Amino acid sequence: MIVVKIGGGAGVNNDAICADIAAISQRGEQIVVVHGTSDAVNTLTERVGMEPRTLQSPSGHVSRYTDADTLEIYTMAAAGQMNKMLVAKLQSLGVNALGLSGVDGKLMIARRKEAVRAIDPTTGKQRVVRDDYTGRVEQVNGDLLTLLLNAGYVPVIAPLALGLECERLNVDGDRAAAQVAGALKADTLVILTNVPGLLANFPDESSLIKHISAGEVERAIEIAGGRMKKKVLAAQEALEVGLSRIVLADSRKSAPINAAVAGEGTVISR
Amino acid sequence: MIVVKIGGGAGVNNDAICADIAAISQRGEQIVVVHGTSDAVNTLTERVGMEPRTLQSPSGHVSRYTDADTLEIYTMAAAGQMNKMLVAKLQSLGVNALGLSGVDGKLMIARRKEAVRAIDPTTGKQRVVRDDYTGRVEQVNGDLLTLLLNAGYVPVIAPLALGLECERLNVDGDRAAAQVAGALKADTLVILTNVPGLLANFPDESSLIKHISAGEVERAIEIAGGRMKKKVLAAQEALEVGLSRIVLADSRKSAPINAAVAGEGTVISR
Repeated sequence: MIVVKIGGGAGVNNDAICADIAAISQRGEQIVVVHGTSDAVNTLTERVGMEPRTLQSPSGHVSRYTDADTLEIYTMAAAGQMNKMLVAKLQSLGVNALGLSGVDGKLMIARRKEAVRAIDPTTGKQRVVRDDYTGRVEQVNGDLLTLLLNAGYVPVIAPLALGLECERLNVDGDRAAAQVAGALKADTLVILTNVPGLLANFPDESSLIKHISAGEVERAIEIAGGRMKKKVLAAQEALEVGLSRIVLADSRKSAPINAAVAGEGTVISR
Repeated sequence: MIVVKIGGGAGVNNDAICADIAAISQRGEQIVVVHGTSDAVNTLTERVGMEPRTLQSPSGHVSRYTDADTLEIYTMAAAGQMNKMLVAKLQSLGVNALGLSGVDGKLMIARRKEAVRAIDPTTGKQRVVRDDYTGRVEQVNGDLLTLLLNAGYVPVIAPLALGLECERLNVDGDRAAAQVAGALKADTLVILTNVPGLLANFPDESSLIKHISAGEVERAIEIAGGRMKKKVLAAQEALEVGLSRIVLADSRKSAPINAAVAGEGTVISR
């Protein structure tokens, strides 16, 4: 059983990734897909004349500012456009894909961050943001995924969760994938990115760190920069929920998921 | 087993409708929801600066002109916004709703109308439109719905289907609901609208036609005007796929689905 997180950024080669999912599925392995959505959300935000806004935490972590209107945009791009595009593409490759978001059948329940401390970009001062619909996945309905997998469907999951008050919430796709993998007791969680894995000296690709043990993850989080930091954090979260193997891998090669499962990339294991 | 089609127009009271779905589900009856999406699509179309466009057939039938870009908007509004809004609302009422579109698990397979004859609104002449992504549902995956229903989920279906070439297609929600009801051998198909049912003299609500037999449906299609004509056509299609009871009913009252099942509205039966 493989759980794969595929990116939502611009330039991701969804054709190659979907062909690889098809190959894996067609040789009889179970696979669950969790996808990102950043580019689709940014594009729709701009098309409706809004500016994509971010929140920067005091520790420097940057996330999408998802107010109520942005949440509608986010829902449309994530659970509508990205999800159904991927499902249709997989269907065209003979995969009986089935798209879900976390609100569907309580697939992913998240806790909303009701008050978010953020640095005001103009004044540099801290303020508290209370209208951000972002959360962290705390519970995954593994029974639903197992029901679908056993019936021959390949679940494709959008990063939208159900809050404790049944509100919809923007959740980080990498960390959602970690929780999904934990609920399914997956053999491997593959997190695709657009670099070969964690690089000791970014962007020097020859500095790839090929293996990280559980005891070295904290140090790896320090080394990682930008979006890779979130991916290592997601890997740490996956270890905490019982996974024994996570691979941070390059989406740009052909058969990227197969390569990752074979050990190409940064393998994080107990 | 009830299949209910709920409208997607502006002003539909989704709170009352969802409360009624919750009451029906909580007393142990199986219910499947198919929803429309017209207002959400029109709103998003306008937000991105496009004009909602229609095609008028030589026989006077008007439908949404769904070119490739409009199809993206349609997908986002139908499978993203409307679908997840309804699912979250039902979840907040204690219903374990699960949203799907027709592309998911091949739930609804449709045949695309590859060449659509349309009247050009400026010249009045006929032309052939080849970039319209609209289709008619031909096949419903009843096994998937049964799998979910038996596991306690309430399926909520967006009017987006998978074409024979795995393209996404805009499909009419009323007719999709008819096909879903046929696949499930539902006891009753309820099609909600914003009038009491089929009116012999529209808009005189006292002219409600309370019962139509199968033999009278052709005549009813002639009587019906505007959007009601499509609903009577959907009822006819439902009879053709084996349904024995369809109710065209008023969504504006409290507990509208219960009222419809009890016979309020226009009952069409064999």
